[in-house]
Order: sequence, then structure tokens, then C-alpha cells
Amino acid sequence: MILTVTLNVSVDKAYKIKGAVCPGTVSRVDECRNTAGGKGLNVARIADLCGEDVLAAGFAGGFNGDYVKAMLCEDGIQSRFTKVKGESRSCINILAGDGTSTEFLEPGAPVEEEEWHRFLKDFEELVRESHVVTISGSAPRGLGTDCYQELIEIVKRQGKQVILDTSGEYLREGLKAKPTMIKPNQEELEDLLGVEIKNREDLILAGKKLVSQGIPYVVISLGAKGALMICEDRIYHGKPPELDAVNPVGCGDSMVGAFAAAFCQGKSDKEALAYAVAVSAANAMNPGTGRFRVKDMEEIHSKAEVEEITY
Amino acid sequence: MILTVTLNVSVDKAYKIKGAVCPGTVSRVDECRNTAGGKGLNVARIADLCGEDVLAAGFAGGFNGDYVKAMLCEDGIQSRFTKVKGESRSCINILAGDGTSTEFLEPGAPVEEEEWHRFLKDFEELVRESHVVTISGSAPRGLGTDCYQELIEIVKRQGKQVILDTSGEYLREGLKAKPTMIKPNQEELEDLLGVEIKNREDLILAGKKLVSQGIPYVVISLGAKGALMICEDRIYHGKPPELDAVNPVGCGDSMVGAFAAAFCQGKSDKEALAYAVAVSAANAMNPGTGRFRVKDMEEIHSKAEVEEITY
Repeated sequence: MILTVTLNVSVDKAYKIKGAVCPGTVSRVDECRNTAGGKGLNVARIADLCGEDVLAAGFAGGFNGDYVKAMLCEDGIQSRFTKVKGESRSCINILAGDGTSTEFLEPGAPVEEEEWHRFLKDFEELVRESHVVTISGSAPRGLGTDCYQELIEIVKRQGKQVILDTSGEYLREGLKAKPTMIKPNQEELEDLLGVEIKNREDLILAGKKLVSQGIPYVVISLGAKGALMICEDRIYHGKPPELDAVNPVGCGDSMVGAFAAAFCQGKSDKEALAYAVAVSAANAMNPGTGRFRVKDMEEIHSKAEVEEITY
Repeated sequence: MILTVTLNVSVDKAYKIKGAVCPGTVSRVDECRNTAGGKGLNVARIADLCGEDVLAAGFAGGFNGDYVKAMLCEDGIQSRFTKVKGESRSCINILAGDGTSTEFLEPGAPVEEEEWHRFLKDFEELVRESHVVTISGSAPRGLGTDCYQELIEIVKRQGKQVILDTSGEYLREGLKAKPTMIKPNQEELEDLLGVEIKNREDLILAGKKLVSQGIPYVVISLGAKGALMICEDRIYHGKPPELDAVNPVGCGDSMVGAFAAAFCQGKSDKEALAYAVAVSAANAMNPGTGRFRVKDMEEIHSKAEVEEITY
């Protein structure tokens, strides 16, 4: 089973408006689509579509928290969230008639210390039933930036694999516990290592540096160019064929979900990369976030190439 | 008891952001305040603060509907909403660091015919227990613009008083049933009568026209200048003293709530107007919408003037 951790779930609201976003005015929304949001829930939907048993964990509170659980349930995803007093947040994405996307992200209610301890206890138990754990996104206020470090240590004590996909201080602190895999993009890598990255060689150097610090798999997502996978003894570049992307949102999460599934299925590193690149590309072809059509994925998979890089 | 009708309730979200609203970017919200929204719920809170028993009716659906009910309950307002399948809406108001307010209003889930009939049945019963009914705001999709006409006819058949506060086609159609009171502002009057209004005399003429059509009380809200009350045999101008307004939102709703309370309390027309003007001004002095401090209201009330206009 794959356990996905999403500490800051939200009801994601996609608003369609005819005109442009005009500060200082009132806009009537033509269409509103609500989704269970938070990067870890994209991972959960993708891992489920990859055929794995999935359990979504994190914090959920109030009416919005119940709404998130109900929407996950409709998608066939089981969840066992730790109940908190605060109301779970909403995040708004306004898709305007002029093609712009304008987002407003609520901070979410702060988590209290007692609630964090209750989560840790729940988490210990859930890890026991899992093969792979994924940890994604930011954390609500009230938690230290070392919260993921604590979670990763729990997973590793139980000898399970854990993928960390976050940024900034959460990533910096989380790395101290040496997760099985991280999946930074170029910007996150530059921020983490304080270097400027100009080409693939720089990316590989950065990845190798992190591997030498004890991270077995550093996967660097490259958007339409696929992903680089740097491990202790091998380096691969997985490349999808050219395709028409309609929604690149959630491609990184899709990669994480696919890798988690590949770990469960015992795929080789090279196979796992080709699969993850195909799943991520198939997500970009789907208007939904954290969703793909199996047919798209299989077609892309058959055309995806994995180049081994000698370095 | 006062029965308030709000067919399109919402979870109103006030977002504070540091910078300006920038189309095409991602903004983190610093502070988010959720309120039970919809004009009729402002009326309900105000009538409750005026010391009257209040029951809030309308449609409520899903998790957002339950959230609205819970927030009303926290404010001490009883509700008996008709449950609908669709999820009740949210409305977003972004208060930016540059002083602008940018709103996005969700349309709300459409109401089905069976749900409307269920509401009408509930409404008939609730009107029986009420002295005054208020009907505010717009209606969800799926209902005809004559929906308020139908409600007003039900109230009048039971010999109760009914205040209608809406605009556009809902107002035009609702007037056919001759509600006890309407509370248009200048813009709504111009739109309704197809005339341009330049001064107080024009306002009075417009009001008299509507009174002659069988509306006993036409109250025209004038913002900081108070309100004009035009009845069959008298015309009054209620004027608040000068004051520091911090939040003019909901002043019209406050006037409606205060008039409903004044009707219940058997106040004279002149007394009712002075009271409503004071409540509305006290609401403008309060950061909350549809709220006032009794102390503010009493002070304003003692200074409010009501001029009788001979015409």
C-alpha cells in the first residue's frame, strides 16, 4: 500500500470567468469546479490510477475537511485524516477569458501541538501497513520546518521507502533524515544548493552532490523534457515523445505517484523512470489535475526513451 | 417572529493580501475570514441584534450549506433551510494592500423544480409562525425571475407583512405581488423605472409612482444621507449624524432588518425610519457586515433627525 501525506489539504476551486481579472471590481463566476486539493492528493489519485492500493493521510478539519474526504471517496481514494479543530482551507484559481490564471492560496488553520502529536501517533500506525510513503507540499502554520524530517525518520525506522516532494526549508530540513527519493525541479535545486544551473551537466552535478549526502534517488523533473534520475551508480535521462499538453499542473505530483507505484511493483530503476515519465506526460494531456487516461499513458510509454548517461 | 428568505446563501470569504491583486500570479492569503453570507443573512443578524426572534430560511446544500448553518448557529440565529442536492456556493472578497476590494461571486448550484416545490411547502408553514417576512438578494439558477412574486403572494394570503429587497427582473416581477415595503437605492430605481434621477425631488416622484401602484412603503436608501420613506399620505427623510464609516457593506440589509423589527414592535412610521437609519449607520461603524454595537446605535439614534417633507 502507498501512504500519501498531505498536511495542508484544500478544497481547490477552479473559477471560469469570461473577462479578465480586474482589480477593484465584482466578477460573476460562470463555472466553478471543486476538487480535493493539495499536492499529496494528486499523488494519491495518480497512484490509484497506477493500480496500487492508496491511503491518503494528513490533517482535515471542519466542513471543508469533510468535503475533501467526500470528494476523495468519490474518486475511490480511501483516507484516514487526523481531525483538527480548524477549518481546512480553500484555494482559488481564476481562469480568465484572456487566458491568465490567477491564484489565491489560503494559509489554512494553524495546527496545534496536541494535534501534531495525534497525527504522529496515527502516522506510525499507518506506516506499518504501507510499502511506500510519499510526503508532498507545504505544511500548515504551527508546525516547524523540520516536521518532514520527523516523519521520514519514522518511516525509515520501519524500513519503508519514502519520497519527499517539497521545497524551501521543508526540503532542506527533510533532507537531514535522508529520504529514499526527492524530486526537485531546477528552481528548487538552485534554491537548495545556492548555485546557478545552466545546463544538464550542472543538473547532474547538483544531483550527484545530493546522492553523495545519502539520498539514494534524486529525480529532477524537467517539464516537457522528462526527468533526470541520479542514483549512486547510474544516471538516466527519461524523455517523453512530443505531445500536446493541455494542463501541466500536477505533472510533478504524477511523477511522484508513478514512482511510488513502481517501487511497489518492484520495477527496475530504468523501467520506473520510463513509466513515471509516461504517467507525468499523460497527466499533462488530461484537463484534470492528478489524472490520466491509461490509453494515453500506454502510448507515451511505448515511445518514451531512457538514455543512460555515462559521467 | 421575523422570517428572512435567502435563496442563494454562501460562505463569504474575506481574504487579506499584502500586495495588489495581480492577474496571472499566485498570491498567498495572509488572513481569511469566513462568514455566513447572502444579503438575507445580514438581515437576520441585524433583526436578532434588534431584539427580535428570527428564523432564517432559504436553500442550503452540501458541506458549504452545513457550514453556513453552523456559522449562523454560532451567531445565535436559528435556521430552517430547505436541503438541496447542489453544494452551496462561496463568494470571495479580496481586500488588497492597495485598498482595493475585488470580488468573485460563484453562481451557486442550480435549484431543481422539485426542490423549489419543497421550499414553497416549507415556506407556507414558516410564514404561519411569522409576523414579518423579508426577501433579499438574487436567486439561484433554475428559478424564474417571478419566484419572489410567488413568495409574496403566499405571505399576503396569510395577511403578514413582507419586505422585498432585490433588483433587476426579480424586483420588477416581485412588485406585481405588491409587497408591504421595498428598499431600492437610486440606481435600482433608475433601472426599474427607466428614468434618470438627479435630485431628491426626482427620488420622491419615483417613490410616489411606486406607492401609487400599491406598494405601501417605498424606502429609498441614500448611503450616508440616510433614507427617504414615501408612503401613501406622508413623506419622511431620515438623516443620521455625520460619522466615521469603516464598512458600508450591508447597510441596506441593516435597514431592512431594522424595519422588520420596527414592524414587529409596532413603531410609528416616523419612529421606524429614525430607528432604521440609526441601525444602518451603526452597521457602517462596525467592521463586521450585518452587525452593530447597541451603544453606537443608541448614540446615533439620539442624534438622527426625521424631516417631514410636504409635497
